[in-house]
Amino acid sequence: MKLVSYRHQNRPGFGAVKDEGVIDLAKHLPAVADLAALVSNPAALAEARRLAATATADFALAAVELEPVVPRPNKIICVGINYVAHAAEAGRTVGKYPVIFHRYAQTLVAHGAPIIRPRVSDNFDFEAELAVVIGKGGSHIKPEEAMNHVAGYTCFNDSSVRDWQFHTHQYGMGKNFRGTGSLGPWLVTADEIPDYRELSIKGMLNGECMQAGKLSELAFDIPALIAYVSQALDWQPGDILATGTPSGIGFKRQPPIFLKPGDTFDVVIPGVGTLSNPVADEA
Amino acid sequence: MKLVSYRHQNRPGFGAVKDEGVIDLAKHLPAVADLAALVSNPAALAEARRLAATATADFALAAVELEPVVPRPNKIICVGINYVAHAAEAGRTVGKYPVIFHRYAQTLVAHGAPIIRPRVSDNFDFEAELAVVIGKGGSHIKPEEAMNHVAGYTCFNDSSVRDWQFHTHQYGMGKNFRGTGSLGPWLVTADEIPDYRELSIKGMLNGECMQAGKLSELAFDIPALIAYVSQALDWQPGDILATGTPSGIGFKRQPPIFLKPGDTFDVVIPGVGTLSNPVADEA
Repeated sequence: MKLVSYRHQNRPGFGAVKDEGVIDLAKHLPAVADLAALVSNPAALAEARRLAATATADFALAAVELEPVVPRPNKIICVGINYVAHAAEAGRTVGKYPVIFHRYAQTLVAHGAPIIRPRVSDNFDFEAELAVVIGKGGSHIKPEEAMNHVAGYTCFNDSSVRDWQFHTHQYGMGKNFRGTGSLGPWLVTADEIPDYRELSIKGMLNGECMQAGKLSELAFDIPALIAYVSQALDWQPGDILATGTPSGIGFKRQPPIFLKPGDTFDVVIPGVGTLSNPVADEA
Repeated sequence: MKLVSYRHQNRPGFGAVKDEGVIDLAKHLPAVADLAALVSNPAALAEARRLAATATADFALAAVELEPVVPRPNKIICVGINYVAHAAEAGRTVGKYPVIFHRYAQTLVAHGAPIIRPRVSDNFDFEAELAVVIGKGGSHIKPEEAMNHVAGYTCFNDSSVRDWQFHTHQYGMGKNFRGTGSLGPWLVTADEIPDYRELSIKGMLNGECMQAGKLSELAFDIPALIAYVSQALDWQPGDILATGTPSGIGFKRQPPIFLKPGDTFDVVIPGVGTLSNPVADEA
């Protein structure tokens, strides 16, 4: 099942995407507040599945304004340097612990919306990633239990302002510019991805492949990441875990390639979806 | 005026603190959702001031369960190594840009509540800080306009799990453990602090002074910090800016001093307040 968050006639909603359109789950499941609440509620999720199989679409996908898959997650936990080849291009080695950094929900944009090149920098770069959406929260999760906490998967562009990212030894605001974290287009529920390690990912700039990787290449796999973070802080429904980007980012190319208005960057994960965003300058 | 967020008879509320008790502003101003909404609304704030001067207290301060001053800020932007003496003890120099890192609202605790030493580490350390609460949001704020965006001040203990903070080159989860970010007891509105640079701060462990500094010593002052961040991401009402900690943290002492159950750590800022938290082990 594919789940989306959206606005329709200016009201927030969430639904299931089928070939013929969107089933308005907010209407059918009025006791469920939003997509994060849905994916943390097994009974509601079962009912959503039944509706997705039997109900008639309420509107065309084109009739809704997509929001980020989870519009306001409590946490967006990002992992740096988690593909070995990307670690090499960044001049780093993979150590004993994952490199964790944080992004605010305020920075998210939806599939199709422009990502924003800031006024203060032209060092605007792309990072194609697989994102995990947490369904069941928890603390001190064991790696062997971790996949039970995954609601599903979506695409993420952790687009970054490189000069700001390296203003100091902490990434700081470089990973938290307005309009730079694209998440979507939808959540594919975990039952449709029997083994995420068989997924592959590409980052495409104006149709040209810039980044390519396989999820089997992660230095810290998804169970290890979920377990590590949960020792420090409880996962909550709707939280996002961004699993890192493969090699090929623009900043490390000779000459560097940066995003500029008129460009389109796509994160392509066959079996999950394609997240596409044009680039616009900050107003 | 001193403003608090709290729960009373299990309902969330916010109010003004007077010598004789708390004025229930949530009751008097039903159109205002919470403290963050209050401090972004000049008309509501003026009415709160009038009530604080004239109304009878609704309940004793001891009758409410304090919450973090802003219970769920959209952002908690923290500044590292912002007192020159602390930079020296950390083995760093102050550079051209402020060291920014991030904390999730989920990690906050209130005045009086225990801060939590985690199961996975005994490297639990204190950091006394002055926190700014943003009233008026905005982007691309000029330093000379920045103080107009400050609603007021409160105390913050950015308590940190040092071994995790240095697992990798990014602070990662070390600044985001559950129950480690204490914020309170109240917001003192900006009109009561004509010049924050005249404030001084102490961090007291079981009554003994561990940290002491003056806010005039900040390497990056509050206007510079507000302006810098606003180039990247809009400030929103209720956002928190934690201005950094003075020297004297436990981790850098010989031998190191870490927080343990039974300890009490106080952040003392005369003119703002005293934030006091006992230490407890994670359950």
